[in-house]
Amino acid sequence: MEWKNEVTHALKIAYPFVQAPMLGITTPQMVAAISNNGGLGSLPVGGLSPEKTLALIRQTKALTDKPFAVNLFAHPIPEFDAAQASAMQNALINICARHHIQYPTQVIENIRFYHYSEQIEILVTENIPIVSFTFGILSDEAVKTLKANGVILIGTATCVKEALILDEKGIDMISAQGIEAGGHRGTFLNDEPLPLIGSMALVPQILSRVNKPVIAAGGIYDGKTTKAAFALGAKGVQVGTAFIASHESLAIPAYKALLPNTLDTDTVLTRAFSGRWARGIGNQLMNEVEQAGIEIPGYPMQNSLISLLRAEAQKANNKDFTTLWAGQSASKAEGKAAADIFWAIIRQAEEV
Amino acid sequence: MEWKNEVTHALKIAYPFVQAPMLGITTPQMVAAISNNGGLGSLPVGGLSPEKTLALIRQTKALTDKPFAVNLFAHPIPEFDAAQASAMQNALINICARHHIQYPTQVIENIRFYHYSEQIEILVTENIPIVSFTFGILSDEAVKTLKANGVILIGTATCVKEALILDEKGIDMISAQGIEAGGHRGTFLNDEPLPLIGSMALVPQILSRVNKPVIAAGGIYDGKTTKAAFALGAKGVQVGTAFIASHESLAIPAYKALLPNTLDTDTVLTRAFSGRWARGIGNQLMNEVEQAGIEIPGYPMQNSLISLLRAEAQKANNKDFTTLWAGQSASKAEGKAAADIFWAIIRQAEEV
Repeated sequence: MEWKNEVTHALKIAYPFVQAPMLGITTPQMVAAISNNGGLGSLPVGGLSPEKTLALIRQTKALTDKPFAVNLFAHPIPEFDAAQASAMQNALINICARHHIQYPTQVIENIRFYHYSEQIEILVTENIPIVSFTFGILSDEAVKTLKANGVILIGTATCVKEALILDEKGIDMISAQGIEAGGHRGTFLNDEPLPLIGSMALVPQILSRVNKPVIAAGGIYDGKTTKAAFALGAKGVQVGTAFIASHESLAIPAYKALLPNTLDTDTVLTRAFSGRWARGIGNQLMNEVEQAGIEIPGYPMQNSLISLLRAEAQKANNKDFTTLWAGQSASKAEGKAAADIFWAIIRQAEEV
Repeated sequence: MEWKNEVTHALKIAYPFVQAPMLGITTPQMVAAISNNGGLGSLPVGGLSPEKTLALIRQTKALTDKPFAVNLFAHPIPEFDAAQASAMQNALINICARHHIQYPTQVIENIRFYHYSEQIEILVTENIPIVSFTFGILSDEAVKTLKANGVILIGTATCVKEALILDEKGIDMISAQGIEAGGHRGTFLNDEPLPLIGSMALVPQILSRVNKPVIAAGGIYDGKTTKAAFALGAKGVQVGTAFIASHESLAIPAYKALLPNTLDTDTVLTRAFSGRWARGIGNQLMNEVEQAGIEIPGYPMQNSLISLLRAEAQKANNKDFTTLWAGQSASKAEGKAAADIFWAIIRQAEEV
């Protein structure tokens, strides 16, 4: 197994192994563990305030002097229908009341959403070498600013058409997110239906149309799946769900304990958790929101409405009323140190 | 690349390469081309009459003396709602009238469905060495009869739970059908929602629970995807869509010509074509049936209602009113001889 390639060269890392950015799961400790061991940690800051973004970057830098990526959500902030959001908030209040959960209501109009453009200057000032993004494509202006500062850009595609757009915009590498992946779909074209492309079809078809390194994401958790991704032509792998149960993860104990006991069919695609399509383990919250019979506001409004409830549930280690992001190979997550998970994958790939 | 393994040994073939059974596409010539070259051809006879089954087996035997598999549809024949079927037939008549297509109506009550139990004796008498099946699991009696006659059985699973059932019933090998695959989903558990498991997650998770050889199906079309399947632990690959445009295929010219011009997102899962979930390229027929606003009868009723329309459309080389089964890597289908497609895959796998 030869690890050195254009990805390790461009990113100045030893192994073309990316720890997936998982907002609400990934900590600076997780990022540093992977970067310090020769992979690429990814710090998720999508939708966070400039202040929080800076604080997380500084925390991560205090733990590693190796390169890590910062991950942005590259979507526009849509106009929201306050009546629709209020209806969902009322539904959530009712769900909470039925289950004796505290729901600290918020004034819908006061919810503040942050656009990635507010984060670009911080990334430049902090000399972040690698910026990955999902949910869209960065503006021409943001791309220009980051590139002028030597930043390597990694965009997310869930189908060939999205990869072609990223390529045309001069994005350096493409993270190909197969249907196996946990968490939010990176899909940014609004064509119906949602692309549901398996990695086995996605990776080689992107590569046959786009002359950029592809990092395979979705279903990768060990040496065998890593080798398979490279056989498909990927020059790197991105691993997320395998780190959810790690010591460095923010996931609550009940969520961590659930993962090894799941079957492949236990994760489903839902808009209930955030307003964007995402893969997670079905639970009471997902079911009740889907069955409430009211329209689910788009991202990030639904995400904000859910987040207060989620915070309460997490305090109580209650997996039934929080978000349970996970990929189709969730059963393979193990409660170990992130560095140990990383090395087990690297070593197994070298052996098989 | 070492091809010899327990699959080639048990099936008495040179390469662990299965040409997927594609009813309405696969011909005895296609089956023989693959078997004669050292792979395993698969003759689809699901839902056919005993007479037609026997005739196809005899035709194939006249073209090859190598082993080939015969593929059955292992589902029960459900009771049908004649009113529902009539409503769909009327909708199809209206669709046809709008598009000036002849629709030779049939008396719903006269439609005859054949159960696989009517085919078992023929398989035994004809000394078929390998029987594969999908849409369910063969009855204990059928399994016993076939096994007593030395037949190797290959069942189809679309999720871990189905693989566990096949294993428990003593099925010899498991065809793991990833979400990338074209044509009908083999799903036989009626749990909602439909399993949508990508090969990258499905193959290794089945292998970690089931001690039987797994044949990977879905998205495999070249040496790279073949190598990836083996990296995941598969002991064989099954290739379907790559043969749809082959010289030996029954696909009409307009359908063959369409395949290389598709994108990964052009295939969708639909019940419109047959009453069972299946992957195909979206067309006018699919859209109009889905938008007709009436319930789609289950398989095989819807299949029978569509089949007369399909036959008319095919006579006219009209791709808009026939079924366009295809997998997510449909763009890779080439108009070559089946043997050339087979050898290109084998040779590329040996080189990469």
